[in-house]
Amino acid sequence: MNEDVKKYLQENRDAHLEQMKELLSIPSISSLSEHKEDVKKAAEWLAMALKEAGVENVKVMETKRHPVVYGDWLKAEGKPTVLIYGHYDVQPVDPIELWETPPFEPAIRDDKIYARGASDDKGQVFMHIKMIEAILKTKGELPVNVKFCIEGEEEIGSPNLDPFVDEHHDLLSADVLLVSDTSMLEKGKPSVCYGLRGLCGLQIDLKGAKGDLHSGIFGGAVQNSIHALVELLATMHNDKGQVTVEGFYDKVRPLTDEEMQTYEELSNDEKMKKQLGVKELFGEEGYSSIARTWGRPTLEINGIYGGFQGEGIKTVIPSEAHAKITCRLVPDQDPKEIADAIVKHIDKHLPPGVTVETTLFDQAKPFITPYDHPAIEAAGKALKEAYHVDPTYARMGGSVPIVETFNTKLGLPAVLMGFGLDEENFHAPNEHFHLENFDKGLMALVDFLFELEYAE
Amino acid sequence: MNEDVKKYLQENRDAHLEQMKELLSIPSISSLSEHKEDVKKAAEWLAMALKEAGVENVKVMETKRHPVVYGDWLKAEGKPTVLIYGHYDVQPVDPIELWETPPFEPAIRDDKIYARGASDDKGQVFMHIKMIEAILKTKGELPVNVKFCIEGEEEIGSPNLDPFVDEHHDLLSADVLLVSDTSMLEKGKPSVCYGLRGLCGLQIDLKGAKGDLHSGIFGGAVQNSIHALVELLATMHNDKGQVTVEGFYDKVRPLTDEEMQTYEELSNDEKMKKQLGVKELFGEEGYSSIARTWGRPTLEINGIYGGFQGEGIKTVIPSEAHAKITCRLVPDQDPKEIADAIVKHIDKHLPPGVTVETTLFDQAKPFITPYDHPAIEAAGKALKEAYHVDPTYARMGGSVPIVETFNTKLGLPAVLMGFGLDEENFHAPNEHFHLENFDKGLMALVDFLFELEYAE
Repeated sequence: MNEDVKKYLQENRDAHLEQMKELLSIPSISSLSEHKEDVKKAAEWLAMALKEAGVENVKVMETKRHPVVYGDWLKAEGKPTVLIYGHYDVQPVDPIELWETPPFEPAIRDDKIYARGASDDKGQVFMHIKMIEAILKTKGELPVNVKFCIEGEEEIGSPNLDPFVDEHHDLLSADVLLVSDTSMLEKGKPSVCYGLRGLCGLQIDLKGAKGDLHSGIFGGAVQNSIHALVELLATMHNDKGQVTVEGFYDKVRPLTDEEMQTYEELSNDEKMKKQLGVKELFGEEGYSSIARTWGRPTLEINGIYGGFQGEGIKTVIPSEAHAKITCRLVPDQDPKEIADAIVKHIDKHLPPGVTVETTLFDQAKPFITPYDHPAIEAAGKALKEAYHVDPTYARMGGSVPIVETFNTKLGLPAVLMGFGLDEENFHAPNEHFHLENFDKGLMALVDFLFELEYAE
Repeated sequence: MNEDVKKYLQENRDAHLEQMKELLSIPSISSLSEHKEDVKKAAEWLAMALKEAGVENVKVMETKRHPVVYGDWLKAEGKPTVLIYGHYDVQPVDPIELWETPPFEPAIRDDKIYARGASDDKGQVFMHIKMIEAILKTKGELPVNVKFCIEGEEEIGSPNLDPFVDEHHDLLSADVLLVSDTSMLEKGKPSVCYGLRGLCGLQIDLKGAKGDLHSGIFGGAVQNSIHALVELLATMHNDKGQVTVEGFYDKVRPLTDEEMQTYEELSNDEKMKKQLGVKELFGEEGYSSIARTWGRPTLEINGIYGGFQGEGIKTVIPSEAHAKITCRLVPDQDPKEIADAIVKHIDKHLPPGVTVETTLFDQAKPFITPYDHPAIEAAGKALKEAYHVDPTYARMGGSVPIVETFNTKLGLPAVLMGFGLDEENFHAPNEHFHLENFDKGLMALVDFLFELEYAE
């Protein structure tokens, strides 16, 4: 399929790689103010590349810090519109001495390109642009409508993306979101990610007596805030690894038989045990490891502290004890409802002799594009064509805040089709990108647009 | 009783107070090496005072750091021997600017003498010497045999007392130990302390995965070490405030009906709640607050830590979690047995997916001289004579390591008859000692020796 487009890509591969090196050589580190001009330079470089590819209405749009690059091609009347998201900012490069070649002097070794941003995410943004260019140069038109939204603040938490989307609601409206900023399952195993877990959490601060007490004088007669805390926290799980907060599972969408089976097959417990250095895994009874991390919610205590932490002994009854909790949520749990349920649980199970304060953390909604959604199926077909294997329909256990932004504000289902590999050192020295996935990924992206043309 | 002795004390009161000021003006701070010579000077001052009082075989005996002052009077053939323990070293004086008069320039105001060491413990050591002097000067002999052992390292944990007692076992052998280094119940309410709680404890270190993990990637599939820790710790108490470690209460000597009643009467829960700033007290069901702190054992978590403790949120599954536990023990619990029982409990209740290491802390045996012991009764009678009220037969919830030393190594029952008051700022600026208790205490100490003559 689309042999002409692919031929164009093959013939221009060397030129494209030279262009990618140009982009990767711009030190667009969003967190460091001394690189503000470099970030802007990268935005302008992308605007130029989009224009040269044939994208229209290209503009570099200012935000409070780093700009968003926008462009569109909207001539496929009656066809779906894809919003393509990516980011052109990168992580800092410290410790610089561990880089084999300088982070902003891109170098190709062993069919991999080494540079900060090669995989996360400038390399993949570059692929999106080249996909469009190849189709337009060979066919004169795109099979679907396309909009680009490339931000420069992802590595600092996208502080201006929400207001930007609010302000430009119509400009960004589309039918589906395409993001290439996630990883493949492993080398040679492409995947489409169709679901992300959400997040909510809170801090628990318990207080007993007004100050720390001498256990020789008061020990036995007054509540110890750590005792109260561990008793309270221990009520939140049972020995089957289930969360015992009332209502926690009420809105959880059950995994389908197909998902259960796929996740079971994907689970490699021996490998995970070795990776984590544990003798046994532990989690919710009745679910495979992959089902537990992709499709089931959790309540995790991320931190606990109170009393004496120094060396040796101090016979103190601590006045205060603290814990931090976050939950990973799955469709159709609501972060606010779950946080409320936990607060209720705390009030109900609070041991005597202490007072409690709870402080809510930021929340993120879980997200799912059903794996039989046409856009997901289109991505699957395109990946199979490019890699000659069945792709995995995967979820991720974490959150990708920008997906929630576009889903919540614009109602977009998302296709997360990434071509990075976990071992490619995102955020670390010697970041690189496998050119095998540059080539096959480009093919898959081209086919995806054509599959999408008729998907419904 | 002993009107001649008491008359002597009254007539020489002013001279004695001047002498006490001399002793208190020596900055015998044992923890600060620049005061090493002062500590020695205080020891020599005491040796001189003992000799002048008529005590024999007085010597300043070197240890690895600060000396012990010894002296005896052993001419009461066939009578019991009292070993009198005290310490002549004092705490540092910081923050010096909070003292109304300089810590080593003793000053009398409102019938109290202000100086570092006035109450803890040089003032009370001085009383012991004057008691002996008064009896010998008026009667020419003591009703019982007496040995003095006055150390200079109590405020730094008596590091050389154990080896000293081992080395001088025969020199120090006696029938009963007298210590005046504890507090009265409150002003006007003398007490004899006949029991102390012991101590044992341990640190628990749990480890799950070999490093901290991202809860988005692994959350749900691997044990969280903090979950394991809170679940483990929560198994150590029930909701009645009882310790649920198997065998914990097996050797606990039950409180007598008389003790239960006395402790109930002494408990002032409203006062304690106000003092501690809590709305309710909490402890072992079926016992009053005083019974809980004096006569019942505890298991306290003194510290807990693991995972993220900074501001806000970090979605980490912590690799490690830690807790520090100490138990206050009562007769006839054995610290080693209890520590073993806790280790066994931990092994039995350890949740899956983690490994545990335990490290034992120092141990102290609980101590009791039955309150109907002749020496305790003698102390009670002497206090009643001096204060004209029934003294309280009390225990203490803490440990006094030196009592355990003399009890274990020399088999001595102990009479803890202290004349300090909790509000007298031991270890704090403006330490002072009420002269009312200097006078009445001296009378009580004199009568105690005579009561002891016939006690059996």
